[in-house]
Parts: sequence; structure tokens; C-alpha cells
Amino acid sequence: MGVYEGPVQVLIDELGRLPGVGPKSAQRIAFHLLKLPTEDARRLADSIIDAKARVSWCTRCFNIAEGDLCSYCRDERRDGAVVCVVEEPRDIVAVERTAEFRGRYHVLQGAISPIEGIGPEHLRVRELLVRIGAESVEEVILATNPNIEGEATAMYLANLIKPLGLKVTRIASGLPVGGDLEYADEVTLGRALEGRREV
Amino acid sequence: MGVYEGPVQVLIDELGRLPGVGPKSAQRIAFHLLKLPTEDARRLADSIIDAKARVSWCTRCFNIAEGDLCSYCRDERRDGAVVCVVEEPRDIVAVERTAEFRGRYHVLQGAISPIEGIGPEHLRVRELLVRIGAESVEEVILATNPNIEGEATAMYLANLIKPLGLKVTRIASGLPVGGDLEYADEVTLGRALEGRREV
Repeated sequence: MGVYEGPVQVLIDELGRLPGVGPKSAQRIAFHLLKLPTEDARRLADSIIDAKARVSWCTRCFNIAEGDLCSYCRDERRDGAVVCVVEEPRDIVAVERTAEFRGRYHVLQGAISPIEGIGPEHLRVRELLVRIGAESVEEVILATNPNIEGEATAMYLANLIKPLGLKVTRIASGLPVGGDLEYADEVTLGRALEGRREV
Repeated sequence: MGVYEGPVQVLIDELGRLPGVGPKSAQRIAFHLLKLPTEDARRLADSIIDAKARVSWCTRCFNIAEGDLCSYCRDERRDGAVVCVVEEPRDIVAVERTAEFRGRYHVLQGAISPIEGIGPEHLRVRELLVRIGAESVEEVILATNPNIEGEATAMYLANLIKPLGLKVTRIASGLPVGGDLEYADEVTLGRALEGRREV
């Protein structure tokens, strides 16, 4: 819109570049920041600079890390024979909350998406293959999202890794626990039927 | 949630303090910033610091301003006899878009809201009265939002200013009641300005 004076418009434009922040939100946040005591606004600015300076990617699994390795890769009690492949660092947090998994992770930093022009070469796929070769990995769990991009990525990785003689598994799709058969969409319910197991 | 390592969590917490940014959005924005080239993230941080350093409040009307006076108060062609009272600087932009108004503004920086503990003493009401006394103001247009807080503020100001012998007007309804000045289209808002009536 460009209706404000210099630095205010610059701030609104910068905020508007953030994901999920539209022009109106950017304006609202900008005025909120202008009304804030300077030290509070400065704390936000500092936290951005500080995070960028101190946080980088784990050189082994590409999770976020302070220093060379992330906390999961530093943890010697973790089982290096099983690697759980996820799209983003936040997915690790979701898996960790289950307390079901004690292996290591590998973060692709995205998923294959032809529409957005993201191919395997933009993801940490090569690094995953190097790890599989160098570490004594026995099972790769494909825990990409159960949507089009995530499924395509899982298929691609399965085709790539299976010929190497490793066990490759995919997290199950099905009805959410506590859910209702009546309200399930047909794709999910179909997948739940397909993946049925003996009781 | 506090599940991330030091600086990342600090960043998420700071982002989560912004209006309209919930925990999930804060996390999404934080990871977006971590993925961004350092100079892009730095540009956002700098724009915050820069805006805080260079932008302050107009000493006359309390709009945002670089320097002592805002662009409307500096503009000598503006009619100082008519003052349009609004809640926030963004409301000035909305009024300007109508191209119906050539007077000056006064920004209250909020509205009376007992629920949020905001009384007239928290707004720029005293400064408005001083202006009315010192400048040769003939008409005060109350252009606070047509919602409960804005109406209450308009009533309060009308009771305060009318006894001083000034013409006090309120923008007409035409704006949907319960709505927000910021989101009004210019035709509706123009009609509302045009049809203002004495309180």
C-alpha cells in the first residue's frame, strides 16, 4: 500500500514477508511495535539476530543445532541403527512427544513439490544416502507428512534406499485415535482399511 | 511449549508476543527466519530498530511522525479550523483515502474501554483540549470507530467539548455498526463523513 512514512512502511513491508502475515496483520504488528517500549521491541530484534548467529543446522541430521551436532545426535544413548526421516525440525518435536522412538533423525528440510519447483536436489537427500553408507543404519522410517508432497517424497526415498538392502518403513495412515468413523474422509478410511492388522 | 534449544525458543517466545501471532504461527515464522539468508533476517531486525529509533509521535496530533510534526501537521494548506479525532494513526490513512477531508487530525491512541481498564486519562484527551484552547478550532469531527468503545469515547468527548461552544460532529452511520474504521471501503467512509450530524 505504501501509505506510511519511510521507516514505518519499511517495517510493514518486512513484516509482510513473514509466512502467514498479510498486509493488515503486518500493519497491526508494526503499530504494536511502535507503541511498545523501545527495550521490548529491541528484545524481538535481538532475538532474531541472536538466533541467526547462534543456531545453525546439525552437520549430521540437519535439525536445528547450537554448535556442530543437535541434542539428539549428541545423545549417545540414542539407537543409531534406526533413522527417522522427517520434513522439518518441528516434526522431530512431534515424534519426540510420543516417547515411542529412541533412534536418530534425519531432517530433509522440505518435501518434493513440483508445483513449488522443489526437487530431491533441494532436500537433504544426498546427505541421507551418505549417512546410510557411513553409519550402520538398519532401518529407515519415512515419517514425511501424509499429504501429496510427503507421500511423493516417501515413495522417492523408498525407491532409492530399498535397493541398498535396508529395511524401509512408512508411518501408518489411518483414523486418528479418538476419532469418529462417521466423520472420516474416504481416503483416510480407505487407508485405515488397507493398513488393517490382525488383532 | 519450551521444547526447543535456547535461542530458538527465545525467538519463538518473542514472536508469540506479537498481536495475532499464536504459538504455532510463532514457531512457523521462527523456522522461516532460521531458513532465511542472514541478511534477510537482519533486514527485519534492523527495520524494527530503525523504526523505533526514527519514528515518534507528532507533538501536536499524536500521529506517527519522523521529527516533531507529522506530515499532516506540517502541511500548511490543511484547514486548522476542523479537527478530525481518530483512535489510531491507521484511521488517518482510512480517512485520507476518501479525499473528502482537508482539515487536521488528532489521534487519541486508543478508545475508552472499561473492560481493558482504559479511561480518558490514558488517551490524548487532555492534549486535544489544550489544542482546542490554543488553536482556532471551530469544528471537531468525532471519527472514532462505530463500536461500543468508539461510541463511548465519542459521547465522552462530545459532552466535554460542546460546552466550550464548538461545533461537534460525529461521522454518520453508513458504516456497519460493530465494524472497524480501518476496514471500511472509501465510498462508505466518504458517505459517512459527508453525512455527519451535530451531536
